[in-house]
Amino acid sequence: MKKRIVLALGGNALQKNGEATAEAQKAVAVSVGEMVAELADKYEIILAHGNGPQIGNLLIHEETAGTEKAPAMPLETAVAMSQGQIGYWLTQAIGNAFAKRGLHKKVVTVISQIVVDRRDPAFKDPTKPIGQFYSEKEAKALARTKGWVVKEDAGRGWRRVVASPRPIDIIEKKSIIELVEDGAIVIAAGGGGIPVIRTKILGRLKGIDAVIDKDYAAEKLAEEAKADIFVSVTGVPNAFINYGTPKAEAIGKISASELEELKKCGYFKPGSMLPKIEATVKFAEHGGTGIITDIDNVKAALAGKAGTIITA
Amino acid sequence: MKKRIVLALGGNALQKNGEATAEAQKAVAVSVGEMVAELADKYEIILAHGNGPQIGNLLIHEETAGTEKAPAMPLETAVAMSQGQIGYWLTQAIGNAFAKRGLHKKVVTVISQIVVDRRDPAFKDPTKPIGQFYSEKEAKALARTKGWVVKEDAGRGWRRVVASPRPIDIIEKKSIIELVEDGAIVIAAGGGGIPVIRTKILGRLKGIDAVIDKDYAAEKLAEEAKADIFVSVTGVPNAFINYGTPKAEAIGKISASELEELKKCGYFKPGSMLPKIEATVKFAEHGGTGIITDIDNVKAALAGKAGTIITA
Repeated sequence: MKKRIVLALGGNALQKNGEATAEAQKAVAVSVGEMVAELADKYEIILAHGNGPQIGNLLIHEETAGTEKAPAMPLETAVAMSQGQIGYWLTQAIGNAFAKRGLHKKVVTVISQIVVDRRDPAFKDPTKPIGQFYSEKEAKALARTKGWVVKEDAGRGWRRVVASPRPIDIIEKKSIIELVEDGAIVIAAGGGGIPVIRTKILGRLKGIDAVIDKDYAAEKLAEEAKADIFVSVTGVPNAFINYGTPKAEAIGKISASELEELKKCGYFKPGSMLPKIEATVKFAEHGGTGIITDIDNVKAALAGKAGTIITA
Repeated sequence: MKKRIVLALGGNALQKNGEATAEAQKAVAVSVGEMVAELADKYEIILAHGNGPQIGNLLIHEETAGTEKAPAMPLETAVAMSQGQIGYWLTQAIGNAFAKRGLHKKVVTVISQIVVDRRDPAFKDPTKPIGQFYSEKEAKALARTKGWVVKEDAGRGWRRVVASPRPIDIIEKKSIIELVEDGAIVIAAGGGGIPVIRTKILGRLKGIDAVIDKDYAAEKLAEEAKADIFVSVTGVPNAFINYGTPKAEAIGKISASELEELKKCGYFKPGSMLPKIEATVKFAEHGGTGIITDIDNVKAALAGKAGTIITA
């Protein structure tokens, strides 16, 4: 029986050297397709992905060019749009990688809503900058008219900040799992999922402007799908201690509790390696194997020969 | 055993009185959700939808605000984005309509690629205007730099025109059908599908800037899914002869061959009722029942009591 893996791919990974045209991002998607096709004979695969730079550009377009007649779409809808965009590129690239091998494998992108809690402390202190830069005056006007929270961003101007709450439930999980069991490669939980809250009235769902970290969302999906392995695919082959210094040291095989200790020492940067550490540790604590590595090393890491490998 | 229906919903239907905010379109989606929930005890449902006004606005934003650093997405990728956008709204609205009834039904949006033929005559004479208006000078510059075909649009300015080729194959059809058989409501072939061509090199897929008519795409999906009924959901309760004149006459139950005769008399407007007539006639000729009606009359039409009903 095949092992089941959930791969979480960074949105930045698709923009090599910052190249943001559709053409350039599709070219990178080809290498993701190759990786997935290489793994598919041994593994059932669910692919989650980030959307940071893609939704950043989309929001710039929407906010700059939105008018009364052609209004800008809100953040939650923009997440859905980025799921369609990136999901399409990945679906096509993966399908083509199978076609190259003479195989016809089902590849499906599922638009994914993820429930968050309106009482999540993140909503009290939004920290995630999103969209374009504004002058202080513009920013404060938008705060008044649109109810945005705006903050000065490291001397570069003012930006909207949104909450980054934890994922609680994945609405489409049953269908995602059924598709995988029916032999499909499934792309889901894109951009951390479309953030929705469950209202008190009959448990109805309602979109909310927020950004769920894609590693937390993908880990949640890995738990729900009873995956054996969760891989956070990033720009570096391993997690490091003293990253970016002469004393940098790659982390190889490690237990969840040891990695948790290193985390407590402050070795990992919030918004960068920290969520990957937290997500893989959580997954390992639930009994699975967590891996942190880059695209080129995923196969070797799954064979225990590369990457940071976290077990209980 | 439940009958299987494919509903094709117009993209215009979501923009009541031209209101194009996400909020306004979500409010209309609620009525679509109600319709689907009402039908779900008797029918297996696949919902296709158009994206005309939505992708129109998206392209305006992309083209107006695209820069070298944050480049505008091309049409084929924009179709994928609109599938995510509208699919999300519909998924949520349908799920909420079930929740209201105390039911938990799976609802899934599948990002859908649809194969077209590069040799389709439509590519020789692009006719479908898309995106914003330009001055003649701007339009001709874009034609040079981007390879667009541009045309003067009825005295209102210059616009890009793209081909509207026929759908040949739906890449994700197997997964769409499996999901329906597993009990899900599936939203697919949004905006007529992301147009792709099959290249000669190993049959790889490649997006192409074009717009597939959503009625033809939905009808194709209805054939592939062996649906019993195909419903083109539009803004009027019936197809009419002499539409918009004092001699207007609603068409009720009619055979495919009779409707084909009326079509030949030129009663139906290209780009409006004509594709709905052609799609439902084609479906009836394949042995199913074709219906043309509006949201409010779908249930009655399925009971044979409203709408234009086409059979072989």
